Amino acid sequence: MPNLLQSKMEGIDFIVAVHGGAGSHSRNSIDLQKEIQIKNGILNALKSAYKVMIQNGTSIEAVKQAIITLEDNPEFNAGKGGKINRKFEIELDASIMNGENLKCGAVASVKRIKNPIKSAEKIMLKTEYILLVGNNADTWAFENELEIVNNSYFFTDERIKEWMEHKNKTENTPNKGTVGAVAFDIFGHSAAATSTGGTTYKIPGRVGDSPIIGAGNYANDKTTAVSCTGDGEEFMRRLIAFDIHSRIIYKNINLKQAVEESMNSLPLNSGGVIAVDNNMTVEMPYNTLGMARGYVRKDGLAFVAIFKENEDLTPTLYNLLN
Amino acid sequence: MPNLLQSKMEGIDFIVAVHGGAGSHSRNSIDLQKEIQIKNGILNALKSAYKVMIQNGTSIEAVKQAIITLEDNPEFNAGKGGKINRKFEIELDASIMNGENLKCGAVASVKRIKNPIKSAEKIMLKTEYILLVGNNADTWAFENELEIVNNSYFFTDERIKEWMEHKNKTENTPNKGTVGAVAFDIFGHSAAATSTGGTTYKIPGRVGDSPIIGAGNYANDKTTAVSCTGDGEEFMRRLIAFDIHSRIIYKNINLKQAVEESMNSLPLNSGGVIAVDNNMTVEMPYNTLGMARGYVRKDGLAFVAIFKENEDLTPTLYNLLN
Repeated sequence: MPNLLQSKMEGIDFIVAVHGGAGSHSRNSIDLQKEIQIKNGILNALKSAYKVMIQNGTSIEAVKQAIITLEDNPEFNAGKGGKINRKFEIELDASIMNGENLKCGAVASVKRIKNPIKSAEKIMLKTEYILLVGNNADTWAFENELEIVNNSYFFTDERIKEWMEHKNKTENTPNKGTVGAVAFDIFGHSAAATSTGGTTYKIPGRVGDSPIIGAGNYANDKTTAVSCTGDGEEFMRRLIAFDIHSRIIYKNINLKQAVEESMNSLPLNSGGVIAVDNNMTVEMPYNTLGMARGYVRKDGLAFVAIFKENEDLTPTLYNLLN
Repeated sequence: MPNLLQSKMEGIDFIVAVHGGAGSHSRNSIDLQKEIQIKNGILNALKSAYKVMIQNGTSIEAVKQAIITLEDNPEFNAGKGGKINRKFEIELDASIMNGENLKCGAVASVKRIKNPIKSAEKIMLKTEYILLVGNNADTWAFENELEIVNNSYFFTDERIKEWMEHKNKTENTPNKGTVGAVAFDIFGHSAAATSTGGTTYKIPGRVGDSPIIGAGNYANDKTTAVSCTGDGEEFMRRLIAFDIHSRIIYKNINLKQAVEESMNSLPLNSGGVIAVDNNMTVEMPYNTLGMARGYVRKDGLAFVAIFKENEDLTPTLYNLLN
């Protein structure tokens, strides 16, 4: 890979990867129109991040912009379009981490912040804290001039339908989905951001891996930036994001090996991760039927897919410069 | 150490270690009476755990009983005696982890559960979740028949005094303290439990490392059981508890080396950890002026100390069989 190596040495390449959740869809559960909507959502998130990066922006700004785009998109389980809990409320979690200095911020179980990722970033920048939870986190966001909405803003017809179906069923429906973005910028700095509405019909107050630094989200310039999606508890007890970092730094193995080993520690059908490193390597494995995912480097050639190779009905390559 | 090795081979030794917080006290800030109170508290927690273990009980039951004893003791910053937040409320966090199967449970920002550690355990045992937060976690505890109290139950005169002092000062007062317990039982199984009231005058809703699996609390039979105390955010961004595990398993180094390396990654004066392993090794380093701490093995000879060697005014060795 002489070109990539050269780019890296000159500090002129960057990489951004995003995901829109693993395990929410199987090939049979979605039609062409739905596939296009999901892939457009991923593509738009990549565009938001690419716009930052191509102007020599930072990875932290790029991942934040990607997540805002996905939070605002009702198709994805984060911000608007979050899953509905047992009390018929939507509770949201998000976290962001700067791999240059290990600064991070997160919110959990918030109900009134339009873009939870913005609140996570503001906690990182303006306080000595990392994690604020519950109504107090909503209040803090209001006092710190973040946009506040009614909880009803986050509801969509599709989520209400899922909630009704879940309520009337005993077996579990595919119930995952979270959004995430990871990046290395031209300055060699990394960032990761993750945002979710959790799971349909969850016990109110339940918090998964997305807002937990080291579980669902982690960035460190020395190793990798990681965002996870799937059965949150399985990722929490294994600290999957930090585990990938640990394997790289303590076993001295590469990103691909580390991600593979860490994924192998998970039960089948539990989810997936996206991870990038300073060599512009990207890994996006999942052990579910699909994972909405994509990445782009400076050349503007974006890869976007949901299912395994050849299972997508639409193209997997797009040119962001067009 | 032929005796220890032999005991281990025969599966008849166990170890329990507890802490009552690092950085809360300096030698000059406490008198003899206070030292005795703190050391008695640690000793009583060790006794609670020892009583379980000597009857061939499990590590998970032992650490739970140790934490209940410390939560009920107003001397320590957990349960009754928790620190008071900016809104003049006490918000509590706790977590517990079973190193045999990586099952875990946690609560954060709860205000009405008399013993948060009992709620953490019940979440671990009765639900598919790990972490419940805020008022909803209090409600869940009430619905699941845990003892509920008014928030006023947790207040003590000493904490109110600290709050008043903090409110009227600009510089930070020593403001740490958390309780923790770790153990390996005769069956080779490990457990860790941690509980805290957080920090005086914290922003309401702030959650530190104690209820975060991998940050302030972690147990894994293959490596170690760890509980942390100190500046929560510094432990969270470094995943100190899981980092010690990772160094052992991925670098193939022993507990002492792993704990030392991990502690070296922390800023000065940020706190301490207690960690044990299946060789009945115990490590209890801290980089603050003191850390209330103790441990005991099957022989019943308990070590209890607050400061560095020779700085304690009272003995550091006690016989639990007396």
